[in-house]
Amino acid sequence: VSRVLVTGAGGFIGRQALEPLARRGLEVHAVARREHRADLLAPSGCEDVVEAVRPSHLLHLAWYAEPGAYWHSPENLRWVDASLRLLHAFARAGGRRAVVAGSCAEYDWSNPPFAEGRTPLEPATLYGAAKHGLNVVARAYVAGADLELAWGRSFLTYGPGEDPRRLVASVARALVSGQPAPCTHGRQVRDFLYVKDLADAFAALTAGEVTGAVNVASGRPVAVRELVGLMGELAGRPELIEIGALPERPGDPAELTADVGRLREELGWRPARTLEQALGETLDWWRRRA
Amino acid sequence: VSRVLVTGAGGFIGRQALEPLARRGLEVHAVARREHRADLLAPSGCEDVVEAVRPSHLLHLAWYAEPGAYWHSPENLRWVDASLRLLHAFARAGGRRAVVAGSCAEYDWSNPPFAEGRTPLEPATLYGAAKHGLNVVARAYVAGADLELAWGRSFLTYGPGEDPRRLVASVARALVSGQPAPCTHGRQVRDFLYVKDLADAFAALTAGEVTGAVNVASGRPVAVRELVGLMGELAGRPELIEIGALPERPGDPAELTADVGRLREELGWRPARTLEQALGETLDWWRRRA
Repeated sequence: VSRVLVTGAGGFIGRQALEPLARRGLEVHAVARREHRADLLAPSGCEDVVEAVRPSHLLHLAWYAEPGAYWHSPENLRWVDASLRLLHAFARAGGRRAVVAGSCAEYDWSNPPFAEGRTPLEPATLYGAAKHGLNVVARAYVAGADLELAWGRSFLTYGPGEDPRRLVASVARALVSGQPAPCTHGRQVRDFLYVKDLADAFAALTAGEVTGAVNVASGRPVAVRELVGLMGELAGRPELIEIGALPERPGDPAELTADVGRLREELGWRPARTLEQALGETLDWWRRRA
Repeated sequence: VSRVLVTGAGGFIGRQALEPLARRGLEVHAVARREHRADLLAPSGCEDVVEAVRPSHLLHLAWYAEPGAYWHSPENLRWVDASLRLLHAFARAGGRRAVVAGSCAEYDWSNPPFAEGRTPLEPATLYGAAKHGLNVVARAYVAGADLELAWGRSFLTYGPGEDPRRLVASVARALVSGQPAPCTHGRQVRDFLYVKDLADAFAALTAGEVTGAVNVASGRPVAVRELVGLMGELAGRPELIEIGALPERPGDPAELTADVGRLREELGWRPARTLEQALGETLDWWRRRA
């Protein structure tokens, strides 16, 4: 039996990954700080949960993700360590295939769209450097440990359960409650992937055989002003979107977009929903919460 | 006062670095597993020693270095973690300048001589990947922590106190006791730097202002057969050197050589001894121990 241990299973992406993993025939064991009382940052947290589950597969999504703070927090250093301990415990316990969540923040942002194996890996943030540094060590580690490693580099995401301080969630909350939604100039171009689709892609990567880095993205870039404009239309309140009301954030890159060739051709994965469908689902979810 | 904390101070390189650091006017605090009872791998080992010393400078030489095993041992993962904790503790305690020992193993070995900023960083070993991964994270960390970081990439070294399982030490021991010294074909080209000179270069780097990666090497490549041949001549027993008596080691790269432009021009450092002088000193040291 294939038995997958999922870290960050209580998180924004992880909670959406459990069903797609089960659907692909894996026995799912979810680890989350609260639900299953495993703290991967504790001295033997990684070792204990791996010993208890003895998984054949690992989907490692857990990381420090406090909006704003995660880009430069020293918490990133602790997650490099926890992730290495987790991989090592997983290998020693007979694990076969690990999938780790990387990030578009690993790439040189001046050079979009980002392609695995071609775009230089020159992170602009501690978060990106921690993920990339972990990847450097993990790749070498698995080469000597008879372990498969796939490294899913996620881009931007949104959907049910998103932290309300983040872009799509904040705009959705404003729209469904009839409040103005102030935005920046909105010319930033981004690859947004609905969190249920993102989680499904990670599940496909876990159940599949592709190794190495794979961008996990929609492959359909959109300007932020178009995205929020579409949300305003879908909510029937386009006048609430206030483009240019917020100052540009310092260091905000002009474009974060993905080459999704590996994802489409090698993994054979595409998102199930259009941007419009996914934003509609997202607005519905926030409406039920309003 | 400038106060430097030296990790690995009981090790092969570290024990040679204390005097050159003091000579450059730094107040030296040495950390070693036995002498000063600090275990950097213990839960609060890094934090405790940094709190006790409150150094302005850090020279981090400590790492797992068991001959043969260190290339692929999972101990490398523990040292990534300990090094990150050490840097973070150092920054929080008001540290100003950190120097960390990197390695020629960080480079793509197919592409000598290796130059900082030009040769791709594609480690062939877990040791090299751990050092490089640490560098990726550490560079991003110090950028946000108001800390200077210099990264000294050492190449091959030898001299007093070398582990007798390593090349120069094993040949020296054989020569001074009149035993045959079996070698491989010896066509491997290497940059060897005498450990006292290597340690002096790290001391110069610590007391200096250069930041980023700096190769710490002699800049004078030599084929292993020439090196051991010279040792045979210096010992007056050239007939004991048995070139070709040992099989080539799998994965042994043809050439590990350094571009030392940064070391010479920016740091203004050169080795104090010729290869012949340094090998002579080394043979003398082993003779006194024979």
